Amino acid sequence: MADVEARERKILVAVDEGEESMYALSWCLKNVVFENTKDTLILLYAKPPQSVYPTHGTGRREHPQGYLFSSDIMASMERYSNEAADCVMEKAKRACKEVKDVKVETRVENGDPRDVICQMAQELEVDVVVMGSHGYGLIKRAFLGSVSNHCAQNVKCPVLIVKRPKSSAGNK
Amino acid sequence: MADVEARERKILVAVDEGEESMYALSWCLKNVVFENTKDTLILLYAKPPQSVYPTHGTGRREHPQGYLFSSDIMASMERYSNEAADCVMEKAKRACKEVKDVKVETRVENGDPRDVICQMAQELEVDVVVMGSHGYGLIKRAFLGSVSNHCAQNVKCPVLIVKRPKSSAGNK
Repeated sequence: MADVEARERKILVAVDEGEESMYALSWCLKNVVFENTKDTLILLYAKPPQSVYPTHGTGRREHPQGYLFSSDIMASMERYSNEAADCVMEKAKRACKEVKDVKVETRVENGDPRDVICQMAQELEVDVVVMGSHGYGLIKRAFLGSVSNHCAQNVKCPVLIVKRPKSSAGNK
Repeated sequence: MADVEARERKILVAVDEGEESMYALSWCLKNVVFENTKDTLILLYAKPPQSVYPTHGTGRREHPQGYLFSSDIMASMERYSNEAADCVMEKAKRACKEVKDVKVETRVENGDPRDVICQMAQELEVDVVVMGSHGYGLIKRAFLGSVSNHCAQNVKCPVLIVKRPKSSAGNK
């Protein structure tokens, strides 16, 4: 294991609101992260872009790419989105602390999870990407394909896709 | 790490003639297999079915699903196929021995790698499946889709897809 101990591995874990990504994180902590090494766990949360735009006026206008809302509503949505990110990150960090003493970093990035994960994996030169098998809802997945499939095809480093067993309460 | 030490993990590694599967095995040994645990590495080789059939006679006949060869040729092909399997397994076992002291089992199964891997993962109740991202040639993959994509979608346990970096000599 000299190889692993000698260098700092960067393990990128994609987290979102879903239980599956928390299960993936937990599985990774128990099965991939070595004890007493220089492993760094990078928790990545992608804030999907909202197809809304400020009106810059009083009334609503048609917009070719999205709905138009007042800047108040925009600010509320942004706040909600940030709170959701914070909430997920806190939960993920707590999960890490409970399982293993490992260095944890967090990244929140704007964009489609598929692009964000591929881009961050490359930019941060991580050793492995860990993710649940679902990252979109059923309908969206039908149109876009699964996030994990996309990443498995496009990320250059190893990709670990963790499915939550149907019978599991997340404790395997 | 008590969790991992307490139980025997079964790690199924799909191996074939390609360098990528050997890289996947090596990466797994260095990054997933813990030292001094009860991990068992199961090396799985799928012998793809040959679309050939014995003639049971002297001449060739047309056959709806494949070519017809004499039983001599069939026996030679079977022998060659077995030798290829032995060769891959020996190479894989040697790679294991060089990196880590881990319990290794081997399985050679007949069938399409996509079916064999999914079936064995379920039958042997493995904890994780490790594989390279390629398992077919370019042409076949274009028609059938990649083996790893199929397995990532259909295997119930976590799947680790390891790509061999283009710049690497297989030693990362």
